[in-house]
Amino acid sequence: MPDMPVPFGDDVSAVNIGKGKLAVFKTDMLVGKTDIPPEMTLWHAARKAVVMNVSDLAAKGVKTTALLASIAVPRDFKRKDIEQIGDGLNAGAREYDAYVLGGDTNEASDIIISCAALGFDEQQSLMLRSGATPDDIVAVTGPFGKTASGLKVLLQGLYAPSRLRKKLVESVLTPHARLNEGLALAQTRAVTAAIDSSDGLAWSLHEISKASNVGFRVDRIPLASEVQDFASLHGLNPSELCLYGGEEYELVVTVKPELWDKVIKNIPLIEIGRVTEKRTLAFRVEGRMLPIEARGWEHFKTNIPRS
Amino acid sequence: MPDMPVPFGDDVSAVNIGKGKLAVFKTDMLVGKTDIPPEMTLWHAARKAVVMNVSDLAAKGVKTTALLASIAVPRDFKRKDIEQIGDGLNAGAREYDAYVLGGDTNEASDIIISCAALGFDEQQSLMLRSGATPDDIVAVTGPFGKTASGLKVLLQGLYAPSRLRKKLVESVLTPHARLNEGLALAQTRAVTAAIDSSDGLAWSLHEISKASNVGFRVDRIPLASEVQDFASLHGLNPSELCLYGGEEYELVVTVKPELWDKVIKNIPLIEIGRVTEKRTLAFRVEGRMLPIEARGWEHFKTNIPRS
Repeated sequence: MPDMPVPFGDDVSAVNIGKGKLAVFKTDMLVGKTDIPPEMTLWHAARKAVVMNVSDLAAKGVKTTALLASIAVPRDFKRKDIEQIGDGLNAGAREYDAYVLGGDTNEASDIIISCAALGFDEQQSLMLRSGATPDDIVAVTGPFGKTASGLKVLLQGLYAPSRLRKKLVESVLTPHARLNEGLALAQTRAVTAAIDSSDGLAWSLHEISKASNVGFRVDRIPLASEVQDFASLHGLNPSELCLYGGEEYELVVTVKPELWDKVIKNIPLIEIGRVTEKRTLAFRVEGRMLPIEARGWEHFKTNIPRS
Repeated sequence: MPDMPVPFGDDVSAVNIGKGKLAVFKTDMLVGKTDIPPEMTLWHAARKAVVMNVSDLAAKGVKTTALLASIAVPRDFKRKDIEQIGDGLNAGAREYDAYVLGGDTNEASDIIISCAALGFDEQQSLMLRSGATPDDIVAVTGPFGKTASGLKVLLQGLYAPSRLRKKLVESVLTPHARLNEGLALAQTRAVTAAIDSSDGLAWSLHEISKASNVGFRVDRIPLASEVQDFASLHGLNPSELCLYGGEEYELVVTVKPELWDKVIKNIPLIEIGRVTEKRTLAFRVEGRMLPIEARGWEHFKTNIPRS
């Protein structure tokens, strides 16, 4: 399309609807075989299919107004299964003040929930992936690594004491989109690039790097305390869980340094590093700088590079 | 959502964007196992996934501006397979002056192509399912039955001489959305209800009947000449092929009788009957009136009622 207001490959697509306003939309699909781990009910899965899409719009500073859901279910599904899906879709939408307005039902061998989200915004307040500038502060809206740990519990059966287990598993079953943070960040006009972290922190940084033609130096890995505990328990590398996880929905943003103090007065952000002119990505651990690899959580395959 | 501009269950959903304008959107999924017959290439399937959505907007009088595609493919798919899908999506969109702006890729055991279409329109020119009034003229944009016959050729191996076979199969592989007709019909302000016929003619009439609380008397089944030939060859009931087929994309509309002559001056429509106050649906065949049953083509299962 000529004059696309949002370039290919960003979190969302958009259409100019006049007077500097955009219709912003996005579709993201959840597939049973690769996206629904044990203990995740159909209600959780449907809710998550909504959250995935709301999160992508939120990362651009856009509130989702309405959603559609295209669903395919196996032939042996019962009425109560479908109702669970409907309830989960609605619960996810209402949490973020959005509505599910329609959709489509089909039969397939695996369960598929494909949502499309629609929202509206001023073109000039949209946060893209492409504006990061050297010396910008890199920040995230919360700590990382709980979902990667939770998925190890659910998929590989790794042990965690019950309180810890509950927190880790909960992060997988009931993800939250950072909508309020995204909207507030867009208001500040201090954010130069933004993305959600559904493919993992490392992957998100590589995406901004590619779109903005910059590098990153991460001085402080934003590790959730629960992840430190879980990693110790099993001799796992906590940085690995934090960088190369995924299915978490924190926002990763770059912020103009001169506006940083003003921004964090109202929006709790964790500073993790700086944008660099040199197009390399590295993180500091125990006094050493190590490369941040371009890999992330790809569904239920173990960490293999996306191309 | 309060004050939904389009009620649940119509062909599309919509959001009010101010000054009487609507953002209209729709999602419809194509599933390999139930929607891709033999001889339909991935290119055809992807193109059709676009056409399905463009057709739903067209039936409301709305042009599709942009599309998203959420795709799942089996693990053994090759790069050229994905390119075929991409080319088919783009071909379908460009045929109707729309653009594919983005999407999402996944892995599943079956191929899934879920498109979402977005367009914009004035609220007052939208053609819903709900306005049909007794004595309105019932009309369609073209003859029916070719896809039902073509699917019998493809799925059950029924014979047809090569020229006939080509036409029937072509109707399945390369459906066309009636976009120009839909836009022109919306301009006339003469249409009281409209729907596309992707679930079959009988099903479409039942949907309008339900939404408008009226009945139908069909005096003339709009039979394609090729279907007459094909039915004779195999001793099939041509009315059955015409009424209870599906996967065809003609528009079914009801038109104010006083504006009929004006409408058909510019838009070629086939008159097939009248709207009745009594909520029954019947069609005339060989001098007798028979009931139009509430069944249609449901993917590749044979005609079973939808509930």
